[in-house]
Amino acid sequence: MSNTKSTSRPVSPLVQNNSRRDFLRKTGLTALIGGVTAACGIEDSAAQGSKPMNADHSGGTMAPNPAPVSVAAAAEEMDRMHEAGVKAFPAKTAGKGNQLLKPRIENGVKIFELTAKKMRWETMPGQTVEAWAYNEQIPGPQIRVREGDRVRLTLKNELSESTAVHFHGLEVPFDQDGVPFITQPPIKPGKSFTYEFTVPNAGSHMYHSHHNAAMQVGLGLLGAFIVEPKDPLPIEKVDIDYVLIMNDGAHGYTFNGKSFPATEPLVAKLGQKLRIRFMNEGMMIHPMHLHGMHMTVIAKDGWMQPAPWKCDTLNVAPGERWDVIVNCNNPGTWAFHCHILPHAESNHGMFGMVTALIVK
Amino acid sequence: MSNTKSTSRPVSPLVQNNSRRDFLRKTGLTALIGGVTAACGIEDSAAQGSKPMNADHSGGTMAPNPAPVSVAAAAEEMDRMHEAGVKAFPAKTAGKGNQLLKPRIENGVKIFELTAKKMRWETMPGQTVEAWAYNEQIPGPQIRVREGDRVRLTLKNELSESTAVHFHGLEVPFDQDGVPFITQPPIKPGKSFTYEFTVPNAGSHMYHSHHNAAMQVGLGLLGAFIVEPKDPLPIEKVDIDYVLIMNDGAHGYTFNGKSFPATEPLVAKLGQKLRIRFMNEGMMIHPMHLHGMHMTVIAKDGWMQPAPWKCDTLNVAPGERWDVIVNCNNPGTWAFHCHILPHAESNHGMFGMVTALIVK
Amino acid sequence: MSNTKSTSRPVSPLVQNNSRRDFLRKTGLTALIGGVTAACGIEDSAAQGSKPMNADHSGGTMAPNPAPVSVAAAAEEMDRMHEAGVKAFPAKTAGKGNQLLKPRIENGVKIFELTAKKMRWETMPGQTVEAWAYNEQIPGPQIRVREGDRVRLTLKNELSESTAVHFHGLEVPFDQDGVPFITQPPIKPGKSFTYEFTVPNAGSHMYHSHHNAAMQVGLGLLGAFIVEPKDPLPIEKVDIDYVLIMNDGAHGYTFNGKSFPATEPLVAKLGQKLRIRFMNEGMMIHPMHLHGMHMTVIAKDGWMQPAPWKCDTLNVAPGERWDVIVNCNNPGTWAFHCHILPHAESNHGMFGMVTALIVK
Repeated sequence: MSNTKSTSRPVSPLVQNNSRRDFLRKTGLTALIGGVTAACGIEDSAAQGSKPMNADHSGGTMAPNPAPVSVAAAAEEMDRMHEAGVKAFPAKTAGKGNQLLKPRIENGVKIFELTAKKMRWETMPGQTVEAWAYNEQIPGPQIRVREGDRVRLTLKNELSESTAVHFHGLEVPFDQDGVPFITQPPIKPGKSFTYEFTVPNAGSHMYHSHHNAAMQVGLGLLGAFIVEPKDPLPIEKVDIDYVLIMNDGAHGYTFNGKSFPATEPLVAKLGQKLRIRFMNEGMMIHPMHLHGMHMTVIAKDGWMQPAPWKCDTLNVAPGERWDVIVNCNNPGTWAFHCHILPHAESNHGMFGMVTALIVK
Repeated sequence: MSNTKSTSRPVSPLVQNNSRRDFLRKTGLTALIGGVTAACGIEDSAAQGSKPMNADHSGGTMAPNPAPVSVAAAAEEMDRMHEAGVKAFPAKTAGKGNQLLKPRIENGVKIFELTAKKMRWETMPGQTVEAWAYNEQIPGPQIRVREGDRVRLTLKNELSESTAVHFHGLEVPFDQDGVPFITQPPIKPGKSFTYEFTVPNAGSHMYHSHHNAAMQVGLGLLGAFIVEPKDPLPIEKVDIDYVLIMNDGAHGYTFNGKSFPATEPLVAKLGQKLRIRFMNEGMMIHPMHLHGMHMTVIAKDGWMQPAPWKCDTLNVAPGERWDVIVNCNNPGTWAFHCHILPHAESNHGMFGMVTALIVK
Repeated sequence: MSNTKSTSRPVSPLVQNNSRRDFLRKTGLTALIGGVTAACGIEDSAAQGSKPMNADHSGGTMAPNPAPVSVAAAAEEMDRMHEAGVKAFPAKTAGKGNQLLKPRIENGVKIFELTAKKMRWETMPGQTVEAWAYNEQIPGPQIRVREGDRVRLTLKNELSESTAVHFHGLEVPFDQDGVPFITQPPIKPGKSFTYEFTVPNAGSHMYHSHHNAAMQVGLGLLGAFIVEPKDPLPIEKVDIDYVLIMNDGAHGYTFNGKSFPATEPLVAKLGQKLRIRFMNEGMMIHPMHLHGMHMTVIAKDGWMQPAPWKCDTLNVAPGERWDVIVNCNNPGTWAFHCHILPHAESNHGMFGMVTALIVK
């Protein structure tokens, strides 16, 4: 279990209820809610299957509590928790991932430096988890280059075990592919490795660990590697270009390293054209549902689709990237979430994979 | 666990075996089947991961029983149970969901009334579960309007907790979107809320709870919201228009609220053109496989695909809707089921997400 | 649990570590690795959810061991295990599935004979499991015919329970569809059944049990049924035609019946055109990721897509078949694996759904 000790700064109302058991004990609701849950035919075991590992939002066996509480009071309490979550959004947390990494340029080569290191990361107010990160960010810093650029990237390994970087989606030469014992030796603790290649193909790609990766990627060793095309198509000319990386490992259900209410809202002006680059770095599918407007799908794994097509719920599988365009023509604060509902809401309110598209 | 008390009316042979443990105890098969299962390398724990929460079709720890039974007798018993399930199809149960709801029309406005209420619901003969339903149906009554219609819909909440309706896929104005604390206050127990909007976009959409939704939708608060286009395409001119809603929550694996053998068969005459509107209201993918004929995919989430494409197995993720056309040109009673096999069959026969397309 | 007794022939270094508990006990690493796992916030329960049922690659509760070992030694040991797996690839095992079955031809009819029988099957060196197989192969022998061919196929059942064969994707007449109690009686132990039909539609199809199928297919009763078109399209003219069948049942995570490092590499010469026919016979999605080159998707369930499209990660759901073309223009030994990382790697190295595309 991750450490969930609160930071010392003021916490939002939602956070005060973060420890469900403590909260319920205080209000005497445990027996009641256990009873309601059982009566509804919802088993704890089922809920547990899909809850984030280090959260305590739903399910859980609770000690019986004889204090009588009315059904109405429980319903009121549920609404109060839902409201607190929404009111707290967007909640402030320490740390922000996916920040653009400016390269140093030497003789026309774009030079990037990454350091992999253990740290602590706040996924939502009061929830701080063990993390392995590039440059102390989750997702790691955004790398954004142009098709045909020469790139040199040095990874320094300050972890306690070996690692390596795979450029997922980039058709690099074999010795730059980042798979230990196949394309290179592992990068041992304390050592560095430098990758260098000419960027071969445009699109929404990723970089992540390819060594002990089920654990290392789950702990945060991942980031976006965006390659702008030499000749963008007219449909790619947008006002806002947004990267949304999903993960569902040791940090729970996250968008760009944060869980609701600490997720970042997407903000657009009425009439603007928004591009969203979905990237799934997790172990589960996440069908992303946008309220109020549809999405036009233009690319898969960085390759333009032969014909754009429309949807409001886009199923993103692990390792996939999908690019969509949203014409922001319906004003409001639109819910935008994974439609596997236990990834997004419990009887304690929305959590995890929820954010909003705000059209002003 | 849900209440599985039988109703008083006569039950089919399948139902008599509904309680596996009782049945096995009577026939002395428990030790044997436990042994066969272990010998096959199939672990109970794996089977349990995918079984419906309130069913007892597969897996389960059984008390040892010393009575010796031959392997052949167990195989015969397995066939007998498979046959009983098929023979019972389509089995009668109380209640039918997805019935067309005729609106009242006032000044050109189509008026619909929904009441959300707790009830009991029979998913298959002898299996009655706790349910939360719209107008005492699961799925709720089918709403079917035309692009551009003015719609007024009142939801009365007779549940013990708050709720709200989201029109999933409809691009309604913000204050009609049904997300408590974001677009409206929650509808408290005993209260009503009226939605009103001009229907903006055609297609196969849904309505469902967006409050404590992982529980409320799982318990039955969902339905189809079909919007017929002003100008249908030639490919949309069909003989039969069928809605198939999947769910996998508290009621087990269901099509339109029922589990095999109580699922409804689709019936067509040879040469007819059938449209199926798949809608997934569950938490898991369901790749739908049709035997004997292929499906031509024409729409995703209510939006026409740029070019129709063919398949026999269509993966439907939570929140997605897919429309397909089947040219019913192969006579027979064709199995039609989710191809995640543990959602459709156990060693006790077919169950859950199985129905048939009957072409006469 | 399956029997994991080693065969008597020499085993690779990887195999010597096959029993994690024994290995760890010898090296005194148990306490340490348990500690590292806990510290990383990775819970065993999560890892268990996705590990193959009969493997012991990841997670698992271990007895505490007081022997002190350094973090550096544990990291070295992890690398050593990763290296041993890669070095062992492609590891030899007994048995090879998916071998082309040559028909006997009588009066223009192509005659195939299958026998379903219990056997033992080696999925990776030293891991031998209980299996139910067609002609002692997993996958069963590859059937490859031409559109319009007359086919007669006899299945002899030497299992201890009934079975039947369904031709998944073929639009055969109703009485040849292989669903017991609906299209035919079950084939009892010791009995045979003969199917005969004119092959109606081209493409990548499958044959598998449709009786107690969640268990029978999981144990190995499955194979490829390829139908070559009368008039292949230019894009279908390839140098190599490869079938890759995924399964995730009682035998763990397998490609064509084998787990890494015993999976078969795909080998191509630089410039060759490779067709891969993905087929998912399991219960879970498997998003297949190819390193170094993209895949052009040309067919779904045997039906040509209206326009080919490109990707590097293709999500294959249970029951689906997808055909892709790879232009082998990037030399190297490219990792090719399911991108649900716990299906492909643990802290003991790569395992399960991993192979390589070798471009020379």
